[in-house]
Amino acid sequence: MSDQHVYKKVELAGSSTTSIEDAISNAIAECAKTVKNVEWFEVVETRGHVVDGKVAHYQVVIKVGFRIETGSN
Amino acid sequence: MSDQHVYKKVELAGSSTTSIEDAISNAIAECAKTVKNVEWFEVVETRGHVVDGKVAHYQVVIKVGFRIETGSN
Amino acid sequence: MSDQHVYKKVELAGSSTTSIEDAISNAIAECAKTVKNVEWFEVVETRGHVVDGKVAHYQVVIKVGFRIETGSN
Amino acid sequence: MSDQHVYKKVELAGSSTTSIEDAISNAIAECAKTVKNVEWFEVVETRGHVVDGKVAHYQVVIKVGFRIETGSN
Amino acid sequence: MSDQHVYKKVELAGSSTTSIEDAISNAIAECAKTVKNVEWFEVVETRGHVVDGKVAHYQVVIKVGFRIETGSN
Amino acid sequence: MSDQHVYKKVELAGSSTTSIEDAISNAIAECAKTVKNVEWFEVVETRGHVVDGKVAHYQVVIKVGFRIETGSN
Amino acid sequence: MSDQHVYKKVELAGSSTTSIEDAISNAIAECAKTVKNVEWFEVVETRGHVVDGKVAHYQVVIKVGFRIETGSN
Amino acid sequence: MSDQHVYKKVELAGSSTTSIEDAISNAIAECAKTVKNVEWFEVVETRGHVVDGKVAHYQVVIKVGFRIETGSN
Amino acid sequence: MSDQHVYKKVELAGSSTTSIEDAISNAIAECAKTVKNVEWFEVVETRGHVVDGKVAHYQVVIKVGFRIETGSN
Amino acid sequence: MSDQHVYKKVELAGSSTTSIEDAISNAIAECAKTVKNVEWFEVVETRGHVVDGKVAHYQVVIKVGFRIETGSN
Amino acid sequence: MSDQHVYKKVELAGSSTTSIEDAISNAIAECAKTVKNVEWFEVVETRGHVVDGKVAHYQVVIKVGFRIETGSN
Amino acid sequence: MSDQHVYKKVELAGSSTTSIEDAISNAIAECAKTVKNVEWFEVVETRGHVVDGKVAHYQVVIKVGFRIETGSN
Repeated sequence: MSDQHVYKKVELAGSSTTSIEDAISNAIAECAKTVKNVEWFEVVETRGHVVDGKVAHYQVVIKVGFRIETGSN
Repeated sequence: MSDQHVYKKVELAGSSTTSIEDAISNAIAECAKTVKNVEWFEVVETRGHVVDGKVAHYQVVIKVGFRIETGSN
Repeated sequence: MSDQHVYKKVELAGSSTTSIEDAISNAIAECAKTVKNVEWFEVVETRGHVVDGKVAHYQVVIKVGFRIETGSN
Repeated sequence: MSDQHVYKKVELAGSSTTSIEDAISNAIAECAKTVKNVEWFEVVETRGHVVDGKVAHYQVVIKVGFRIETGSN
Repeated sequence: MSDQHVYKKVELAGSSTTSIEDAISNAIAECAKTVKNVEWFEVVETRGHVVDGKVAHYQVVIKVGFRIETGSN
Repeated sequence: MSDQHVYKKVELAGSSTTSIEDAISNAIAECAKTVKNVEWFEVVETRGHVVDGKVAHYQVVIKVGFRIETGSN
Repeated sequence: MSDQHVYKKVELAGSSTTSIEDAISNAIAECAKTVKNVEWFEVVETRGHVVDGKVAHYQVVIKVGFRIETGSN
Repeated sequence: MSDQHVYKKVELAGSSTTSIEDAISNAIAECAKTVKNVEWFEVVETRGHVVDGKVAHYQVVIKVGFRIETGSN
Repeated sequence: MSDQHVYKKVELAGSSTTSIEDAISNAIAECAKTVKNVEWFEVVETRGHVVDGKVAHYQVVIKVGFRIETGSN
Repeated sequence: MSDQHVYKKVELAGSSTTSIEDAISNAIAECAKTVKNVEWFEVVETRGHVVDGKVAHYQVVIKVGFRIETGSN
Repeated sequence: MSDQHVYKKVELAGSSTTSIEDAISNAIAECAKTVKNVEWFEVVETRGHVVDGKVAHYQVVIKVGFRIETGSN
Repeated sequence: MSDQHVYKKVELAGSSTTSIEDAISNAIAECAKTVKNVEWFEVVETRGHVVDGKVAHYQVVIKVGFRIETGSN
């Protein structure tokens, strides 16, 4: 089993006033502060808040996958 | 029951020649012309038309949620 | 944004004693009495009632999409 | 086609501080203020807000089905 | 990015001998012992164990969302 | 294979005028009249009938799992 | 609990060389030979076999719901 | 591995002005012009276009399965 | 209708300490004790119990399809 | 059947270092090199790779629909 | 756009008398005869045929992803 | 509430060059290094990498459920 890896996926919601891509980036950046080895993300849900008939911010729920180092999950 | 609200969700499809975010904004702007209290949206489906091998416009189906004022749904 | 359209989708259930297609048609015909610009439908669910071991009527839930004219959603 | 009916389904979210059933009832009561012939509901989503580690209120998204009278959808 | 938040969602299963609402509350209460800023929950699955033809306890799987403070996910 | 079990799941719909939990219990109680070894249930769908703008009864569709004794499925 | 009913749903696949409706009818007719009180069906899946580039028969998987009389599930 | 087969499934959308079954047949007939060994289909989505409050044509998306002969996928 | 068949699908959960395939086989073998004409299965869910950080047994939920002989469903 | 069309849908994954829209465009552009009559796309899945806590590239899986000319699927 | 790739996913069903893994391998091997650059697979559906109360063969539907070289999709 | 438990579910992806079961075991073994009381798993997704037309390794995404001891989630 020496060459196999185990990954963990956590579900995060990022937000942004400007774009879906920026909301994704914000969630990943926050995750990367405490988790090493983040390798991929998957969009689960895209939504947002509306104020005065305009999108106030996008909220994007993503799953973030990272490789578990021994003893770290 | 004085402090509880009821929301209605309607399903709209907006389009844009430029971006997914713009298609969302167009649908919400149209909805806000006749509905007050729009509070959030959820993306249901993202698709688009193709002309000459290029995206002609994005079509984004969203659900838009708004608070019902008494007697308005 | 002059050339973009916004569509609304409403969910209806039509019924018919004869066929799935007729149940769809009945729902669309009823919708078209009060809504202009109906452009497409999508079948969501097909079911029906049974009486004496025979289908008494088909019930087909569809989403109907129509173009919103300014101020009409 | 004299004996067939057409139903419309609208999506509502009710809330309650006490129970899921009460959130459902609140949404239906609000709907019944303006729509006649409400006949059934289907729970789409159950969620809620949390304050200080306790459920502050339940939010239940339902679809409500009502029979369309001629010219009323 | 000063005004945007990132949320994490964790999946928990609570149980109760009395009601679905109580199973939800038990899961949230346990979560709140170690996580601050719990803001919402979403019901994912409702099930339960049966003993002697009666519900012995309800098991409700929920996702719990909480705001991440810097460095805490 | 002496220590393995096989379970069967059947789909039932129970109803109640009072609560979702009671509708579940009614379906399980009916099932337990003829099936032994009922061990768990899973909620598949929650809906109900509405009369005069109020919930007349809840209808909860559940899957009920029971252990098959030899020759009994 | 005297006025509540319990229903059972069974999953059947009917086939027909002529139409989807006929495949549904065939499954219901077979079911009605041994089960009383069949009240409704729901289409789960529509498929079919192809021979020589033509539909040889339609296969429609339905769930059939029937009211359980005491002691009959 | 001499007695095992491999199948490929392709997704097609057929249309018809008359019925769902005819839309399925049209898609299969077109597929059979270039693919041998078509064996089954599965309906993925049923929808259609509406003109003047009537169904102008049904559109049925199907997956078509055919046996791959060596070197033909 | 002489050449059409009707099939019934039942949902079973088999278990095995060794493999997913063995769990499937155990469920089918149990089913075949009382049902003739079993023709196919579909995997619905794969799960299992864990003891001491190891898989104690796999649990595979399958739907089993069998042809109904007249009067046997 | 002279006025009906048949469409084929193929599933592609495009990538881009800049945006979701660009990943979609890249997939469609590649498809259009060998397929004529591309008419629409549907987003199936949005994901991406992360390097050093930043999105390295977006990966968008789309279905692309194109009209089949006789003998071309 | 020089460093971005486009992938195509095709849906195949492989079969095997021995195991789920072998059915997957058979489908991929067949695909690799005519397609270069196969990089991954995803299991879509696991099912099988039953003869005499035993699994006669497993059928596994997979999506296979391969990198498109210019002009090859 | 003394006899009720709360469980947490985490999502992991294990890999193996040999089998689906081995990929599951690898993920659970890694999880059990840091989490006590692992009780069950559920398969969410089965996929894998392909090299030279052969499965290089299986990747199985599972949810792992474990009982939360006070203060440990």
